[in-house]
Amino acid sequence: MSALEQKQQKIDPYISRVSDTPFMTERQDPVIYGEQVALGEDKGPLNLEHLEAYNDNGFLFFESLFSEDEVSWLLGEVERLKTLKELEDSDYVIREPESNEIRSFFYVHQFDAVFKALSQDERIVNIAEQILGSQVYIHQSRVNLKPGFRGKEFYWHSDFETWHTEDGMPRMRALSCSITLTDNNEFNGPLMVIPGSHKLYISCVGETPENHHLDSLRKQEYGVPDDKIMTELVEQNGIVAPKGKAGSVIFFECNLMHGSNSNITPYTRTNAFFVYNSAENTLVDPYSGMQPRPEHIATRKDFAPIQPSRLQNALKDYRDKK
Amino acid sequence: MSALEQKQQKIDPYISRVSDTPFMTERQDPVIYGEQVALGEDKGPLNLEHLEAYNDNGFLFFESLFSEDEVSWLLGEVERLKTLKELEDSDYVIREPESNEIRSFFYVHQFDAVFKALSQDERIVNIAEQILGSQVYIHQSRVNLKPGFRGKEFYWHSDFETWHTEDGMPRMRALSCSITLTDNNEFNGPLMVIPGSHKLYISCVGETPENHHLDSLRKQEYGVPDDKIMTELVEQNGIVAPKGKAGSVIFFECNLMHGSNSNITPYTRTNAFFVYNSAENTLVDPYSGMQPRPEHIATRKDFAPIQPSRLQNALKDYRDKK
Repeated sequence: MSALEQKQQKIDPYISRVSDTPFMTERQDPVIYGEQVALGEDKGPLNLEHLEAYNDNGFLFFESLFSEDEVSWLLGEVERLKTLKELEDSDYVIREPESNEIRSFFYVHQFDAVFKALSQDERIVNIAEQILGSQVYIHQSRVNLKPGFRGKEFYWHSDFETWHTEDGMPRMRALSCSITLTDNNEFNGPLMVIPGSHKLYISCVGETPENHHLDSLRKQEYGVPDDKIMTELVEQNGIVAPKGKAGSVIFFECNLMHGSNSNITPYTRTNAFFVYNSAENTLVDPYSGMQPRPEHIATRKDFAPIQPSRLQNALKDYRDKK
Repeated sequence: MSALEQKQQKIDPYISRVSDTPFMTERQDPVIYGEQVALGEDKGPLNLEHLEAYNDNGFLFFESLFSEDEVSWLLGEVERLKTLKELEDSDYVIREPESNEIRSFFYVHQFDAVFKALSQDERIVNIAEQILGSQVYIHQSRVNLKPGFRGKEFYWHSDFETWHTEDGMPRMRALSCSITLTDNNEFNGPLMVIPGSHKLYISCVGETPENHHLDSLRKQEYGVPDDKIMTELVEQNGIVAPKGKAGSVIFFECNLMHGSNSNITPYTRTNAFFVYNSAENTLVDPYSGMQPRPEHIATRKDFAPIQPSRLQNALKDYRDKK
């Protein structure tokens, strides 16, 4: 690192994409907020064992947290979204780089009532609040469809590296919650994580081009960790792919290194994905000095904390109306 | 199928790439030759249980058939091949479509003494002879390196569909033998097979372009099975990915549907790959009516049966010379 880079790092401990040399530094922030682990007291719903596992590994997996009934309702909603004419050319829709099939619907917690209700469900929001030690709001939401046959890989990345650099998220005080809507097995490109990698910060090389998000959501080329660092990380920590039935939930820390392989099987891999950020960690200007990404990718207009509610109530309302 | 296509199929039961409609027909050939299963007598080295499993599933997996010592010698040879200046621009070397890293060395049983010795090793040749009920020769050989980080998928295919259409292999009387030189795990894009799929023949759509092999070995676009048929096949038979330590061997039938996902992990997946064809099933003109593929992809000049020998002897000679 040059003298200038060292100076920059003092001002911003999570600086990235400014140097030609990748480097790895220690995480500067807590993983569990509110000193629950230090005090040996959990506030619930997670118990101390959960909190310690999350602290050490950077993720938690709960099989079948959502019922089959809920999953089938949510999947039906995904099918409905696919048919909506007004979404066809929408910025909210990201397509596969080669086949042009739908890869993700962004902003679903805002434009879709069903996924809004899911994003506010108390089973997940209460866990996010407990880990982050505050109220939370949604930084980003999406439904990912890794289509069968032609679903491409998501390369290794730390979400926080992007959210800090491109969106201006100040500290590591956010988490992702992925709710699987189809079975995840070893064949259909499940999420792979490197346990413990959230404790290090991997600064990436290269400057971010303007409007990077137009390509990066299809295929990542910047904010990509170095091969040598990735080899070290995997040698020290291994790889884990939490797998299970539809309705399972993975919580993972914003700085956990993760990715997934392609999917040539006929099994589509669909999941709903919400990023909960602490209401005490709202966005500032992007640390890259560039224009922020659009609202549907990184919320800046609405930091109002979520009021947790019950998905079952929304489901009941929906069925009553029918 | 049109009347003309039906007529063509009578002449060639394994016709492919002539119609716009994909279709599935029954296999016309035995899987195990020499009536061993029918007679309830094995000739060895495989026992009846092995033969029946191969007959039903179309593959057999043997963990650690080769010793660690043998594997490390073979891997050393791969490393040496990578450094050979004369191979740099050789047709024998196939590169990854995007990163240009080496994906395969073809023709290794001809140009490399170590892999020639491996291809003649009695542990594998005797099994090939037993299954195919005759002496065998090598139709194709290669070393595949699915590089870490940027190894791309191999889409689903039946090898026989290509060997019949593009190379003129008359009947289903061949098998592939893949010797793993690195550990295969669930993360690094292991070979996936559809058990039982060798009993059906999937005819593919579209005409083959001239010099198709220049692209198809990097990325397959013709001879690709239809989505609907693949979905049916997987629904009925599932997917299996034989995994295990370096030195393991997978034998699979020439018409077994197989493929593999990408590999973003740091674990390179390297294997040696030999196709044994029955000496009674030597090539004729390609059934596509086109020019045959080059000799290093499909042997036409040398149908002389292999004389099985011991890899250990070659290894000893090699060490004595050192």
